[in-house]
Amino acid sequence: MSIVSDAHTPEKLELTDEEIFGSHVDGKLSVELAAPLETQRDLSIAYTPGVAQVSRAIAADETLAARYTWTSRLVVVVSDGTAVLGLGDIGPRASLPVMEGKSALFKKFAGLNSIPLVLDTKDPDAIVETLVRLRPSFGAVNLEDISAPRCFEIEKRVIEALDCPVMHDDQHGTAIVALAALKGAVKVQNRDITSLRVVISGAGAAGVACANILLAAGIEDVVVLDSKGIVSSDRPDLHPIKADLASRTNPADRRGGLIEALDGADVFLGVSAGTVPEEIIATMADNAIIFAMSNPDPEIHPDIARKYAAIVATGRSDFPNQINNVLAFPGVFRGALDAGARRITEGMKLAAADAILSVVADELSVDKIVPSPLDPRVEPAVAEAVAAAARAEGVA
Amino acid sequence: MSIVSDAHTPEKLELTDEEIFGSHVDGKLSVELAAPLETQRDLSIAYTPGVAQVSRAIAADETLAARYTWTSRLVVVVSDGTAVLGLGDIGPRASLPVMEGKSALFKKFAGLNSIPLVLDTKDPDAIVETLVRLRPSFGAVNLEDISAPRCFEIEKRVIEALDCPVMHDDQHGTAIVALAALKGAVKVQNRDITSLRVVISGAGAAGVACANILLAAGIEDVVVLDSKGIVSSDRPDLHPIKADLASRTNPADRRGGLIEALDGADVFLGVSAGTVPEEIIATMADNAIIFAMSNPDPEIHPDIARKYAAIVATGRSDFPNQINNVLAFPGVFRGALDAGARRITEGMKLAAADAILSVVADELSVDKIVPSPLDPRVEPAVAEAVAAAARAEGVA
Repeated sequence: MSIVSDAHTPEKLELTDEEIFGSHVDGKLSVELAAPLETQRDLSIAYTPGVAQVSRAIAADETLAARYTWTSRLVVVVSDGTAVLGLGDIGPRASLPVMEGKSALFKKFAGLNSIPLVLDTKDPDAIVETLVRLRPSFGAVNLEDISAPRCFEIEKRVIEALDCPVMHDDQHGTAIVALAALKGAVKVQNRDITSLRVVISGAGAAGVACANILLAAGIEDVVVLDSKGIVSSDRPDLHPIKADLASRTNPADRRGGLIEALDGADVFLGVSAGTVPEEIIATMADNAIIFAMSNPDPEIHPDIARKYAAIVATGRSDFPNQINNVLAFPGVFRGALDAGARRITEGMKLAAADAILSVVADELSVDKIVPSPLDPRVEPAVAEAVAAAARAEGVA
Repeated sequence: MSIVSDAHTPEKLELTDEEIFGSHVDGKLSVELAAPLETQRDLSIAYTPGVAQVSRAIAADETLAARYTWTSRLVVVVSDGTAVLGLGDIGPRASLPVMEGKSALFKKFAGLNSIPLVLDTKDPDAIVETLVRLRPSFGAVNLEDISAPRCFEIEKRVIEALDCPVMHDDQHGTAIVALAALKGAVKVQNRDITSLRVVISGAGAAGVACANILLAAGIEDVVVLDSKGIVSSDRPDLHPIKADLASRTNPADRRGGLIEALDGADVFLGVSAGTVPEEIIATMADNAIIFAMSNPDPEIHPDIARKYAAIVATGRSDFPNQINNVLAFPGVFRGALDAGARRITEGMKLAAADAILSVVADELSVDKIVPSPLDPRVEPAVAEAVAAAARAEGVA
């Protein structure tokens, strides 16, 4: 991985349409030859007759495909285009520039090959079935921008159906980085993470995954809100995913909305694309931590949040403490593939969060609770930790 | 396209296992970034927030996906691994090195991006359905190494289902190059192609397609043989594909096997992986033309064939007149994609054959009836002719 030129300099970006569209002409990816094909001899090795030797060897021992094809380093970025960025259900074709970008990030940050596969179906059965049929073509699956609550069932079923690393990044990439940032924040404050009262605004892909990883990290008082208020066990309208969440969160049995949830809370974690009024933020506890991660518009402007909170993070590059999935997914997949892991476990995700934080352990401050997304130390640290966790957990 | 160093020098190749397997480690393809991602600004253009502009534009007008994604220059090489080289049904994983090689050839010879997708199913319904679901992900489909007679139904159904160029190369790539070579041979001999008596040994993918393209080129007396002999209308055992072939070939109503078919024939076209005894070849007409295209072992050794034939061609690089699909498929797909063609027509295939021959029109001899597979003039000529034919036929 090359080192970026302005890794630690947040900057205001003024992008023109000409610049954006011009850079997208013919897409952002190119398939190149791993070795030159210049001579008849090159052709005879890479194609007939030489290739027949390799095919025969794999036919005799299918595990050799991992060694003699590109699949063991190939991540497919799979989407049905139903929840693309903040744009919603814009369809597979319109999602493609995002998926190409994701594939480009896999190469840039983890040196992995990656191709986008967008599907002209929203049917979970069809999505799972398609990936099962394509299984010999790839080494791992990054599910992307699939709408909730469908994404939970689809990810679960794809994981069950395939013997390779599978992760819905909108869920777990976000959750891993949020946990890393929260661990960084409490380390700066010299607090115990398990005693925090955390409020998560948003019960979609990211919100549910954040709740799960924070519970797994030992936090007991997590309250999640959806558009109708606190996800509590008395609500009759809950989808099974939210009903399950209600049964495992909100131990003080709070009812109501943001006002009731945030009153006295230590942490606000926004993954909702909504907004939070200043007067409600003002009711949080002393030394509050605010992660306003909605993009491009944070739930509350960081300058206002700072009036009431000790530590503020957003998803944006032009403010301190950028919480960005790119801190997690390249290293998670790289580590899983390096280890030959058959799946991505909760332990591997927790290890990834710790590894992200470890990179800046000696540099922590209120304005640096996570590394920059462009910090070249992150991906190798995450990959190593994830691979070690995979081996320790016996999935590699 | 770069020019190869030994384009016109057939050579004996001694390949070692070390060399072959060593060059296949981690596969033969790499996905690279079309533009650098070095700065925060690069990231903001290629990924969020910039990419949202492009996704919004495509959501409003889906035809823009052709301009702003890589799909309009992307050929998927699709196989179920049922008829790989001469190795037979070795499965999708073992077929992958061949498919990676094919994708590499698309980049090398046509500058097109290409990825292999191998399918863990042999069910034609499932193969067609999978490609329909993946349709937004690519620009064209090269079907490869799918067994006959399944390949005929699968190709027909994929063509009907998709609005993009689709071609089973084992059929039509072979047929296009065989026709080009036969046109070159008769030009050397100053003969009329339509008056030739042609015998095709093999009624699989290549044999059926060769028969069809020779009939389309105006040859009237084509006889096709399968493992049981001449495909003739009196045979009760014929698959519908062969029954159809029988109804359109063998106008003299010959019966029997190779002995009966080759007696007095002008052209032998071998795509059978079988062998033909010298004494049967000896019964062909004067000035016979022999294309012994089976690989790696021609149906009859070229040195023996030359005793009885005026012109001999094989599939091998170490004898003159190599008939190799790489003369056709890169330019066919490039031309079809350049023109924005919705399908590949018979007229486009005939135009490709003429374009291949045109490259060596002034260099023709008994030992040069087609260009070398490494001749850099071929692909541009084929692409231009195919694109022009697509426009002329109204499919672009």
